[in-house]
Parts: sequence; C-alpha cells; structure tokens
Amino acid sequence: MIQIYTGNGKGKTTAALGLIIRALGQEKKVCLIQFMKKNFEYGEIKFLSKQEGLDIFQFGTAQLVNPESPDKIDFEEAEKAYNKCKETIASNKYDIIVIDEINVAVKWKLLPLQKQIELMEMDTDTEIIMTGRYAKNEVLHRASLVTEMKEIKHYFVLGVEARKGIEF
Amino acid sequence: MIQIYTGNGKGKTTAALGLIIRALGQEKKVCLIQFMKKNFEYGEIKFLSKQEGLDIFQFGTAQLVNPESPDKIDFEEAEKAYNKCKETIASNKYDIIVIDEINVAVKWKLLPLQKQIELMEMDTDTEIIMTGRYAKNEVLHRASLVTEMKEIKHYFVLGVEARKGIEF
Repeated sequence: MIQIYTGNGKGKTTAALGLIIRALGQEKKVCLIQFMKKNFEYGEIKFLSKQEGLDIFQFGTAQLVNPESPDKIDFEEAEKAYNKCKETIASNKYDIIVIDEINVAVKWKLLPLQKQIELMEMDTDTEIIMTGRYAKNEVLHRASLVTEMKEIKHYFVLGVEARKGIEF
Repeated sequence: MIQIYTGNGKGKTTAALGLIIRALGQEKKVCLIQFMKKNFEYGEIKFLSKQEGLDIFQFGTAQLVNPESPDKIDFEEAEKAYNKCKETIASNKYDIIVIDEINVAVKWKLLPLQKQIELMEMDTDTEIIMTGRYAKNEVLHRASLVTEMKEIKHYFVLGVEARKGIEF
C-alpha cells in the first residue's frame, strides 16, 4: 500500500523517519531513498546511517535546487533516484520503502509525473511512503492513505532561522 | 519554543519521533514523555529504548482509556505524567522534550487544561513538542509552531487493520 505525506506544514519527512524507526523496532527491513538531499549534514542521516536493517540512498547535490531553472545534474540525479526506487521496489527485499521528497521533484519537473505513477503502479507487497509538498492529484488518487501536514502557525515569521537538531 | 502536532491525520507521534532521531543525530539530549501509552509493544519504543542521549518515561496503562468514563488510574497516571513533564522542563537538562498525546489527555479531561498551559508557560530554553489530536485553542494560541495533520484519505475504510511495524 502507498502512503503520502504532503502539505505545507512541518512533519512530512520526520513522520516518515518515525515510521522507519517504528518499523526497525519491529525488525522490519527498510529502505530510505531521498531526492534532492545529498551530502547535507542532516541529523537524521547521521543517526540512521548507523542502524542495522536500514539502507539509505541519497540523490541530488549539496546545493538547493532552483525550481525556476534546475541544473542538468538535478535532472540526472532525479533519474538516478527514480531508477533506484524502481530497483528496490522490484527487489521485494524490503518491508517498507520511504521515497522522500519525490512529490517536490515531480512538481519541479525534475522527474516526469508519469514516472512517479509508474512506481505507484508496480506490483509489490512493500509498503511505500512518498513525501513532499505539492503531491499531484493523480498521485493522491492512487494512494491508500494521504495525510496533509497543514501549517497553522510558524515561528519563522518571528525571524527564527533553521536550527541544527530541530529543523535539520 | 513550543511546537504542536495535532489533527486527525497520521504522523503526529511519528513526526515527533523523527525529530527525536534528528536531534540525537546532532548530539542533542532528548526526553520523551508519553501519556496513555504504557506497556504496549510499540516498535518505536523497542528501538528508541536502546539509544543513548534519550530518556523515555511512559505513563498510563496497557488498556485503552475509555473517554466516556476513564478509570481512577487513568487520572492518576496523567497526574504523574504531568509531574514528570514539570520536573524535566525545570531541570533544564534536555535540549528537546517531546510530550506525546498530552492534547488527548486534556481533551478527555484526564489532565486539566490549566496544567497543560502551566507547562507551556514555564521559563525554559528547552524545545517542547506536544502531540495529539484535539489540541485546545488556548494551547494553539500559546505555541510557536502548529501543524495540523489532516486525514485526506485512509485505507482503514478498506478494512485494513492496524499493522505491526506500520501503525505501531
């Protein structure tokens, strides 16, 4: 089955991370594939990369993607991430596969919507979790569970910067 | 600062768990206090109880609380959980304290709203995260960041039961 976490609020990636540790606690085999998140010092990756039962594959660059004019490498990395998704789903090796930020990669046209749909239509028993704001209607339509994280109130308006250990 | 995860969708507790591992990855000191969640085989607790840098305190019983007529012990456990929250916030020992399901404990009147507000008004540098659906307006009002997890679509309507390693 396929779960989607989308919306403009906090908690999409962290909810997927929480599912990962819940699954590891129940001795499931888990895979985390991240679009557009390579080489950045995320606390969760520092922590999770030490855990057994979990494979992590990151794609993208250390630079933020410019949605107005992405670099060639951004497209190439998205394609590689997609291939890795396909391969891991097809392998039937995992109980759970988290595909982080794929919704954003599609929204920014780094990955064609059709390829996300292909992943969703693969025949598998693996639980698939896709995160990122801007999930397309075609994606929501094909999911079994959709949660929208909705920002009601945010302290960034108070001028607070992203904080190590909290936001990343 | 205080973050609230509320709403009827999935991902409130898991988002808090994700924040915990992110924080542990950045070598922060974290405390998880859970209302109404004692002695149940949650995957996340099996996993997290082995981690350094994190203290976990669970309150409640292994029985689900009946919101219509809670048992005496449910009130007692909520009071104990509240006291632990107060003590840990006052200790200034932690970078982050997650108070899981406190919003529900207040909604079900196991804990007076005034006590949740007292916790929110304590003078501290600790980042506090409160989870649970039904957060009161008085609580939202005092938070720095509020995210509503909104259920858009749920496979339970398809007759799927809670699954080990996914839902708990």
